Amino acid sequence: MNKAYIEAINNAIDENYQEKAVSSQLNESIIYSLKAGGKRVRPLLLMTTLESLGGNPDDGIAFGLAVEMIHTYSLIHDDLPAMDDDDYRRGKLTNHKVYGEATAILAGDALLTDSFHQIISGNYSDATKIKLITLLSDAAGSKGMVAGQMLDMESENKSIDMITLETIHHHKTGDLIHASIYAAGIILNLNDDILLSLDKVGRNIGLMFQIKDDILDVEGDFESIGKTVGSDAENAKSTYVSLIGLEASKQRLNEIYNETIEIVEDITLNKAPLIALIDFIVDRNK
Amino acid sequence: MNKAYIEAINNAIDENYQEKAVSSQLNESIIYSLKAGGKRVRPLLLMTTLESLGGNPDDGIAFGLAVEMIHTYSLIHDDLPAMDDDDYRRGKLTNHKVYGEATAILAGDALLTDSFHQIISGNYSDATKIKLITLLSDAAGSKGMVAGQMLDMESENKSIDMITLETIHHHKTGDLIHASIYAAGIILNLNDDILLSLDKVGRNIGLMFQIKDDILDVEGDFESIGKTVGSDAENAKSTYVSLIGLEASKQRLNEIYNETIEIVEDITLNKAPLIALIDFIVDRNK
Repeated sequence: MNKAYIEAINNAIDENYQEKAVSSQLNESIIYSLKAGGKRVRPLLLMTTLESLGGNPDDGIAFGLAVEMIHTYSLIHDDLPAMDDDDYRRGKLTNHKVYGEATAILAGDALLTDSFHQIISGNYSDATKIKLITLLSDAAGSKGMVAGQMLDMESENKSIDMITLETIHHHKTGDLIHASIYAAGIILNLNDDILLSLDKVGRNIGLMFQIKDDILDVEGDFESIGKTVGSDAENAKSTYVSLIGLEASKQRLNEIYNETIEIVEDITLNKAPLIALIDFIVDRNK
Repeated sequence: MNKAYIEAINNAIDENYQEKAVSSQLNESIIYSLKAGGKRVRPLLLMTTLESLGGNPDDGIAFGLAVEMIHTYSLIHDDLPAMDDDDYRRGKLTNHKVYGEATAILAGDALLTDSFHQIISGNYSDATKIKLITLLSDAAGSKGMVAGQMLDMESENKSIDMITLETIHHHKTGDLIHASIYAAGIILNLNDDILLSLDKVGRNIGLMFQIKDDILDVEGDFESIGKTVGSDAENAKSTYVSLIGLEASKQRLNEIYNETIEIVEDITLNKAPLIALIDFIVDRNK
């Protein structure tokens, strides 16, 4: 975990919302959730991938923050009473518990909308901006993250198979993580072969992230993960663990890990930072 | 009102969501609201402004539909129980009454996200796309429409003055209408003088639209406007009518109208289509 990268992202958040607000209440609720202790995994993935590919990590700040804004809005909306109805997130009260439901809906809408301006504020060529906006809107919209969230809701209290579970994860958490990795290739204007490898690495990291989440839901503790342990089982949600068991989930995680490291070793100039970050995702206890 | 323009927008909607959906339930709820009888005022404003300025109205379809998608998402979210809690919109059940709250939240999120891809799908240069995306994200985000919605909520059950009311309208309804007019100048790459005039025309049309809405809330009937008459008074909302009275509101509308027509006559090659559309906005009974 690179603390300097996290600091760069946090500084970019401060700069973004320091201007005079039209509604100070709205800005306050936006900043509350942006600074509610997120691990910044998505911007870190982009900045670290850039570093490992020989690029400048700072070139990932603008797009990385845009992805973090989308991720943050999705958590605010997911926590709403009409959705998952969660009172806590990362050990802190959720946005609607502090500011009320209406403000939480609007804070999410604003973050989502502002994220596209955020990309444009980056120091990218027009052609790169267009590619990055396409990547993010596809990853987050009706064919991406939102569709994954919808499929996840539709599958509650139903028994689903592994293909359905992986489709849900592919979109619900995978698409944004994939976009964070893949964006490095767009920013560095890399060739199709490397883009294809980044595509695979991005997909695999998304999958590992979700399998690890499912394992933590069984093995973690409240203090570490900041939400109720066993909440998936309580909500009757299918997970890797419920479908194939804890040991097989760990084995699957390990297989994907080995495949991913092999590709990373193949395409990077400096593999260490990206492998360290993948290790963090796979070994984290929250 | 140009029926051919409305048909072009409706065709573009069909094309947009005809591909295989990740979640057919999500797509269905999106299409339900996109086709719930909207007057397509915003795309019509853009296409008609293009026509009056001597451009090709079809060049407004891509961006016009993006604005319509943003407008539609905002209505879905505004109607939610946690917001205005409306069961009907344009005489039809609101999205959450048909599909449930969770799906309505997600349908809004998806429309908002997809709108940026929609701009990119247009036949514009990269530089124009960037300008249009900046225009739309600013008009809709935390310094635009969402902030206006927030200010509107904050002012409920309070007595507010005319400056506050106009600030709310400026953002809540004005920013998107303004963007629809102003986009014509961006698409046609017009000079700063004409952009400044379009800026004024866009602001004025937004203001006229809102004053007319406030008048209709007092003078309209359910069958025509598709929602409960007097709902503003019932919700204790300040309006032009409540602040300055019905006659003064009509007079203010008339003054702004005359100012706007003067500018339109000055900058257009073919003033008739745009004036006819402004007349429709000012004379409509719903």
